[in-house]
Amino acid sequence: MAEESGRQTTAIQPRRDQDFPEWYQQVIRAADMAENSPVRGCMVIKPWGWSIWERIRDYLDFRIKATGHENAYFPLFLPLSYLEKEASHVEGFAKECAVVTHHRLEFKDGKLVPVAELEEPLVIRPTSETVIGEAFSRWVNSWRDLPLKINQWANVVRWEMRPRIFLRTTEFLWQEGHTAHATEEEAWQEAKLMLEEYRKLMEDVMAMPVIIGSKSPGERFPGAVDTMSLECMTQDRKAIQAGTSHYLGQNFSKAFQIRFNTPDGKMEYAYTTSWGATTRLLGAMIMVHGDDNGLCLPPKIAPYHVVIIPVLTKAERNEAVLRAAQKLKAELEARSFDGSPVRVHIDGRDIRAGEKGWMWVKKGVPLRIELGPRDIETESCVVTVRDDPQLAKTVMPHTQLVRTIEEMLADFQERLFQKAWAFREQHIHTDISSFDEMKAFFTPKNEEKPEIHGGFVKAKWCGDQKTEELLKEMKVTIRSIPIQQSGTQGRCIITGQPATIDAIFAKSY
Amino acid sequence: MAEESGRQTTAIQPRRDQDFPEWYQQVIRAADMAENSPVRGCMVIKPWGWSIWERIRDYLDFRIKATGHENAYFPLFLPLSYLEKEASHVEGFAKECAVVTHHRLEFKDGKLVPVAELEEPLVIRPTSETVIGEAFSRWVNSWRDLPLKINQWANVVRWEMRPRIFLRTTEFLWQEGHTAHATEEEAWQEAKLMLEEYRKLMEDVMAMPVIIGSKSPGERFPGAVDTMSLECMTQDRKAIQAGTSHYLGQNFSKAFQIRFNTPDGKMEYAYTTSWGATTRLLGAMIMVHGDDNGLCLPPKIAPYHVVIIPVLTKAERNEAVLRAAQKLKAELEARSFDGSPVRVHIDGRDIRAGEKGWMWVKKGVPLRIELGPRDIETESCVVTVRDDPQLAKTVMPHTQLVRTIEEMLADFQERLFQKAWAFREQHIHTDISSFDEMKAFFTPKNEEKPEIHGGFVKAKWCGDQKTEELLKEMKVTIRSIPIQQSGTQGRCIITGQPATIDAIFAKSY
Repeated sequence: MAEESGRQTTAIQPRRDQDFPEWYQQVIRAADMAENSPVRGCMVIKPWGWSIWERIRDYLDFRIKATGHENAYFPLFLPLSYLEKEASHVEGFAKECAVVTHHRLEFKDGKLVPVAELEEPLVIRPTSETVIGEAFSRWVNSWRDLPLKINQWANVVRWEMRPRIFLRTTEFLWQEGHTAHATEEEAWQEAKLMLEEYRKLMEDVMAMPVIIGSKSPGERFPGAVDTMSLECMTQDRKAIQAGTSHYLGQNFSKAFQIRFNTPDGKMEYAYTTSWGATTRLLGAMIMVHGDDNGLCLPPKIAPYHVVIIPVLTKAERNEAVLRAAQKLKAELEARSFDGSPVRVHIDGRDIRAGEKGWMWVKKGVPLRIELGPRDIETESCVVTVRDDPQLAKTVMPHTQLVRTIEEMLADFQERLFQKAWAFREQHIHTDISSFDEMKAFFTPKNEEKPEIHGGFVKAKWCGDQKTEELLKEMKVTIRSIPIQQSGTQGRCIITGQPATIDAIFAKSY
Repeated sequence: MAEESGRQTTAIQPRRDQDFPEWYQQVIRAADMAENSPVRGCMVIKPWGWSIWERIRDYLDFRIKATGHENAYFPLFLPLSYLEKEASHVEGFAKECAVVTHHRLEFKDGKLVPVAELEEPLVIRPTSETVIGEAFSRWVNSWRDLPLKINQWANVVRWEMRPRIFLRTTEFLWQEGHTAHATEEEAWQEAKLMLEEYRKLMEDVMAMPVIIGSKSPGERFPGAVDTMSLECMTQDRKAIQAGTSHYLGQNFSKAFQIRFNTPDGKMEYAYTTSWGATTRLLGAMIMVHGDDNGLCLPPKIAPYHVVIIPVLTKAERNEAVLRAAQKLKAELEARSFDGSPVRVHIDGRDIRAGEKGWMWVKKGVPLRIELGPRDIETESCVVTVRDDPQLAKTVMPHTQLVRTIEEMLADFQERLFQKAWAFREQHIHTDISSFDEMKAFFTPKNEEKPEIHGGFVKAKWCGDQKTEELLKEMKVTIRSIPIQQSGTQGRCIITGQPATIDAIFAKSY
């Protein structure tokens, strides 16, 4: 390991610039966040990964409730007949549906086989617009029943041919919000409100800058009138769709008969929305903030802000060191960050301090503090800040650490955001003006062993859905039509025709 | 409704004594807790039911963490080959497994059909010993890796032929703890520790007295060495198994090769446990505490402790009433109960106060407060306590209400427990001494329209598994071999042979 050998090496092999996808896998392994399960395409989320997810979930759950939504829970199974009701919805999801066809197992010739075939096969929910639409059709009768604003935390299944842990797994976890409204305007406002809530989560809590905007027709959610998304840039300059909010118009209310009596006695179809954020956020966070030493956690979602590593030597000295560690922990926990007490963990395991130190580096804890027999005498400690590439050690009096801990964590949070912001801005290109130039931009110099290349191209687009097909050969898609539009005239980067729409083109996960 | 008609009627029809199973369904409907989904055997948990489940979940999650467990998440799917590894486990669950056989849908002749058959079918987890056992076999290598104490919150599927909402649903939600230990003794302690945590949840939080003990061999979890359970008595005098904790010995560690190096270099199999509590707790709570006016919530898990109903009359008066309601709410919220602020809701909807009042009665909120124009003048309010069968109204000064709110809620919590305790004690019979007597005891007088009958029979049992078969004709099982044993000699109630074991016999949900 770097510190011990003295050589300029890194905890994660390969480095980001050597093989980004493999680096990503190794960070997850080194941080002990999750693992690929032998169950095809599925993952096991291990305690460290889960405790980060819990923080994301708890924050988002709080905001979902604060904005007037209620949690509920709907069945895992969808009858085939539900899926069939919305034509583009079924078309969008049919290819990736896990289907339950039997409800019993029996041994036949010593082999366990499915028996008791179902009359109507059941699909495991890839998303719940249909089963929730069916419920809403019963719950909504009058304008007094609206708006209906429901959220559920659930697992969903979309059969993945090329799974990638956190980013694309056959089973994943998410929240899905589903709302019904009396007017188009109110439903639009809802979809935008939740987009803004996701922006706050991603930028203000997870320190990941996002571009918010609408999807092009080719990238829309199956059944939506408009899909809005939040796109991050990874350190290999690709886009990750980190959350979506859909305005569904009356598509699902017509498919499921979600109708209401207006105050003047007419029957009208409701306007619905849906919006979701998933465990993929963990993958985005790794790809945005991780470095060649492993995970790097924004303090607001770090399970621990500070890990104290007592340097244990001889039994007679250890007691004093452990006592000092406990005292420092208590003093730090009496301080608060982001509205709750600073989270401190003492790693008192009887293994070498260096080994413990590297473990917490790889797990991404913002501050690591070493405390040895000599430090107690001077009432100081050795502090390492996780986002320093050199992991430089600073000696600091306990009093100073305690007094400035909140500021140190706030600065850390802000630095992560600023660094990711600067990186993204550096790799948004606005000077690419022809299709050929764009093609060159997105083509690696070395096809055998592609280096990190590309970025986001911000260019004009004519809005013609057919042009999206032409992007496929360079494995690029329109990621976003940003909400902030310049309003200027220009020429479509694909067709050369006059165009006004500003669009973001990129490769994506 | 009762209050309005003046007649001695009840909010729930039928009453408990008329048709208990139907009363149960009607309470759930009246409280708007959940509904049967058109998806066979599955339920929709509606916001009121969900918010109660959240409180149970949050309490239990806190205790699970406080006792040194970590949360994680494992796949929804089990390969058939996993299930086959533990013989009695597969035998126990094979009959109720939902099986995924295809991973794609296609339209054929205008009909959606499953295509892309899986090489190995996948089972939707009925419980996760197998998939977690497989992971543990990789995670555990040395004695240093033990104990391994993991919990997950998840949905599971057991195909139910006779579903009953909350109590037996094809899909249900639960937590399942899974631990591995170096010694038999430590694993036993763990299983007992979690049994005690469940007891605290059920008795101290949900106010439901439980009998804790071991299951007889015929009722054991498939693959367990010992299953311990917590059994409540419903108001129709049946048993509900409200939680279980299993000592699994080395059965699963041998099936999945969960082995570790001991400090002296030997390889040994770990000892494992598992324990779970489910959404069935909501059903148990209804059947233990509900009455003929609906749900009755123990304050510790009530989403609201107090609902204030402003009596709205004329616009010019309403403002003052609503202001007084807000003030009272703020004063009550400044008080605490069970370690957190009193939870108060103002129902300011523009509908009749009587209608609002009955809604909250049926939803089981502990205290209902009416506040009208005359009450403000006297700075008093009208208080109704949910567990009073007459729902009598008491006029009370605001100051008194605020001063005594914590005591009122604590008393309410205690009353519910004492009432359920007294009911149960009244219906535990220790004087039934022969098989024929027991048969008569468990036989309704009127088979056509069975009245509430029976109860728990506490009697001696010889311990012979074959005798359990003989109980089937009276639809009775051994519910528990209580941990507290008298140690006396007697005769087995089934065989008449000498016996020492005290056992609880009952019908059950």
